[in-house]
Amino acid sequence: MSVKVYEMAEVSFRGPEDGNPFKDVWIVATVESGERSYAVPGFYDGNGIYKVRLMPDAEGVYTITLKSNDEDLNGKTASVTCSGRSPYLHGPVRVIDEWHFAYADGTPYYENGTTCYAWTHQPKELRKRTLRTLKGGPFNKIRFCAFPKHYRYNENVPECFVFEGSEEKGFDFTRFNPSFFKTLEDCIESLQKMGIEADIILFHPYDRWGFSRMPRETDEFYLRYMVARLWAYGNVWWSFANEFDFMKEKTAEDFDLYGTIVQTIDPANHLRSIHNARIFFDHTKPWITHCSIQRYDMQRIPEWHEQYHKPIVMDEIRYEGDIPNTWGNLTGLQLVDYYWEGLCYGGFCGHGETYLNPREELWWSKGGELVGSAPKRLAFYNKILAEMPNDFVPGRLGIARPCISSPQGIHLYYMGNTQSGEADFTLPDAGLYEADIIDVWHMRVTTLKQTFEGPEFSVSLPGKPYHAVRLRRIEQIEASLKED
Amino acid sequence: MSVKVYEMAEVSFRGPEDGNPFKDVWIVATVESGERSYAVPGFYDGNGIYKVRLMPDAEGVYTITLKSNDEDLNGKTASVTCSGRSPYLHGPVRVIDEWHFAYADGTPYYENGTTCYAWTHQPKELRKRTLRTLKGGPFNKIRFCAFPKHYRYNENVPECFVFEGSEEKGFDFTRFNPSFFKTLEDCIESLQKMGIEADIILFHPYDRWGFSRMPRETDEFYLRYMVARLWAYGNVWWSFANEFDFMKEKTAEDFDLYGTIVQTIDPANHLRSIHNARIFFDHTKPWITHCSIQRYDMQRIPEWHEQYHKPIVMDEIRYEGDIPNTWGNLTGLQLVDYYWEGLCYGGFCGHGETYLNPREELWWSKGGELVGSAPKRLAFYNKILAEMPNDFVPGRLGIARPCISSPQGIHLYYMGNTQSGEADFTLPDAGLYEADIIDVWHMRVTTLKQTFEGPEFSVSLPGKPYHAVRLRRIEQIEASLKED
Repeated sequence: MSVKVYEMAEVSFRGPEDGNPFKDVWIVATVESGERSYAVPGFYDGNGIYKVRLMPDAEGVYTITLKSNDEDLNGKTASVTCSGRSPYLHGPVRVIDEWHFAYADGTPYYENGTTCYAWTHQPKELRKRTLRTLKGGPFNKIRFCAFPKHYRYNENVPECFVFEGSEEKGFDFTRFNPSFFKTLEDCIESLQKMGIEADIILFHPYDRWGFSRMPRETDEFYLRYMVARLWAYGNVWWSFANEFDFMKEKTAEDFDLYGTIVQTIDPANHLRSIHNARIFFDHTKPWITHCSIQRYDMQRIPEWHEQYHKPIVMDEIRYEGDIPNTWGNLTGLQLVDYYWEGLCYGGFCGHGETYLNPREELWWSKGGELVGSAPKRLAFYNKILAEMPNDFVPGRLGIARPCISSPQGIHLYYMGNTQSGEADFTLPDAGLYEADIIDVWHMRVTTLKQTFEGPEFSVSLPGKPYHAVRLRRIEQIEASLKED
Repeated sequence: MSVKVYEMAEVSFRGPEDGNPFKDVWIVATVESGERSYAVPGFYDGNGIYKVRLMPDAEGVYTITLKSNDEDLNGKTASVTCSGRSPYLHGPVRVIDEWHFAYADGTPYYENGTTCYAWTHQPKELRKRTLRTLKGGPFNKIRFCAFPKHYRYNENVPECFVFEGSEEKGFDFTRFNPSFFKTLEDCIESLQKMGIEADIILFHPYDRWGFSRMPRETDEFYLRYMVARLWAYGNVWWSFANEFDFMKEKTAEDFDLYGTIVQTIDPANHLRSIHNARIFFDHTKPWITHCSIQRYDMQRIPEWHEQYHKPIVMDEIRYEGDIPNTWGNLTGLQLVDYYWEGLCYGGFCGHGETYLNPREELWWSKGGELVGSAPKRLAFYNKILAEMPNDFVPGRLGIARPCISSPQGIHLYYMGNTQSGEADFTLPDAGLYEADIIDVWHMRVTTLKQTFEGPEFSVSLPGKPYHAVRLRRIEQIEASLKED
């Protein structure tokens, strides 16, 4: 078998079918490539088929030797050749410092996620529409649940579940359902092709089937299977919970254990986070790679940075929509305003949409189409953000206007609700600056004809809310152009 | 001499004029009325005149006996008769529980302040215009500084100062300037007649004269004089600092000492607070009666209540205006939105206006006229607030829509940026409810024809931001009407 760098490779083995292979048989592969050797968990895929998945991170030959409690499987070998690179595979996203993400190959990753909790549990036709929408959209991450969701507008019964069984007959918590995983993996792969990270929510409280109340050993059994199946997809992130503090059956110690287990067994060391409702999890825990936060007081982002020293993803800032729930009826303008405010305080905001339609297909839960006014503004936001070097840090705290600054002399201020016709700036460095006035709603960038002599100067503004100001040190820009 | 209840009474005595009576002579009055006896500090008013001021809180005769280190003054007596009540004098505002204020006579006081830092230091003509504006306005408190302010748009030299001297010749920090106090007291009295509290800022950092850098003994000398002169005005509040943490020459211990001194010597026990820039003062200190906060993240008000158990006045939430300073260019809409959001989280917001005009007469500093769009909406806000019983408490925390609820069955929700056409409510009590939709910007109250059976129901909304919803239990309303 041959794959490209960061592509998922799968090798299959035939093994015992009788009894309950999910429980009875274990396989672990020792993977060797050049000097390197590491362990990779394998899994049972039903019908007597056992699989090991790899994600080679460099060109070369990878040999696989199985260990198993099954005599036939034990000692079996296979190999995978990795050669060439794909234009869309950059490897797993990593945390590169307390502010930023980047792909494993070094490509900057500026997080901009959306939420469709239950999209993979919807019928194929709807999943296709969701993927079509995502393809044209501004998002490079999507949050969704492994277990189905029971909630207002989320009453329909999924076709299949993580575990064998059905809503009527109940579930066998000792057997996984390979056809569920086939669908899930198709979804993850489709996302990967579009450059979209799959932020998989492992546990959540909105449950009528018992998946939120499994005993610890079943939780572990499930987590180990999830990792074995999914780790080789470069775009996987592990979110240990949606609203962990609403899961009354689980303790912080449970999540700590689960986080540590996944950290230990996931060969790719995918990003790990845990999302709050009212109370924050202790994001200083070593297994947590970044803060996944449900809040919308962007001003506090600097405080959380101070506390956790990890990138901050404002994964739930409420949604653009028109439903009665307090969190589901923001205007698009408010959502876009939050995005810019959050960015300039040093975080990355997340999108969601909750417009009700007669089919009760709300994007936030089921996917489908986006009808809101925010998404195209978020594409514009991406464009401006992509023009920031991936070394920016928030420049100011407290009551002053939020801003992010690159040491290369680029400063992006969000002016939010200002209606002044003028703004004063005090920059860290002297020099000649150009100023761009960025209308975040009408998506226009106007470069002022005048240049400004730093470090202190005033810039004319349109006198209306919802603009950003980008100040660029001209020397710096010329220098960087020469380098290219 | 005869005064009404809560009216200022003044008795004068002739005494020594030579030397420096401010420093050399002290007088304290023992005031007796019926069974009661208490000490009141007197003060030197220049030209050999010594004064004691009273604010009788009940009808009766008040006899005054002086103690002094001056032999002639020592033992002198006078008396004041208090009879009758004035319609506009309700006595000092008190904190009645951790949420609310009321006047000493029990009348509810719903705080709605504005800020004109240096208005008393402006020429008489401008002070008159400021008073005229206040008379027609929605404010029942004004924050201003005893010392003049040096800042952008605040460069003009005041006619006189707390201390004898001038900007050119310097100041004598051992002598007060009675004509300065005459002006200040006229201002306070004019405010009192309009039912406006005078929140006097005792120290602040914006200074080119040295008033922010006086030694501790001069600070104390000044505070004792301020209390002796001003305590008898019922509408005085003591704000120990504007932006205390920007006063690099003072420590928290200094302010603690000053707060405790004033608490000890002020016979009326006027409200005391201290206002922050970046860092909060420890509002749990016993001398602090309520939290005076510069912030605009209204969501945190419940957290501060939890921490301090005192009423919260959001004294600086930035200003409606158009100046470049980050805090001075809010839209009127944003300011009004903050007011309602703050209220429904359990705080009282404060107004300010910073529209620049050719005379550089910005309301926030000098007073003059208000030109913004917020004030008339704040009058409407007052009207709605006055319809809330003074026992309301915030009903919800966290991500839910903020609301204040009276045990009498009135619930006021601020829907903020919602654009839903519907909202769900879960009330603490069953019963039949009426619903008012309150358009906070267009200042309209629409009572829905339908009634609602609680505790859980949905209400139709206009589908646009900036509305409040008031739910009134109908039984309660009928019952209270019968009681009247």
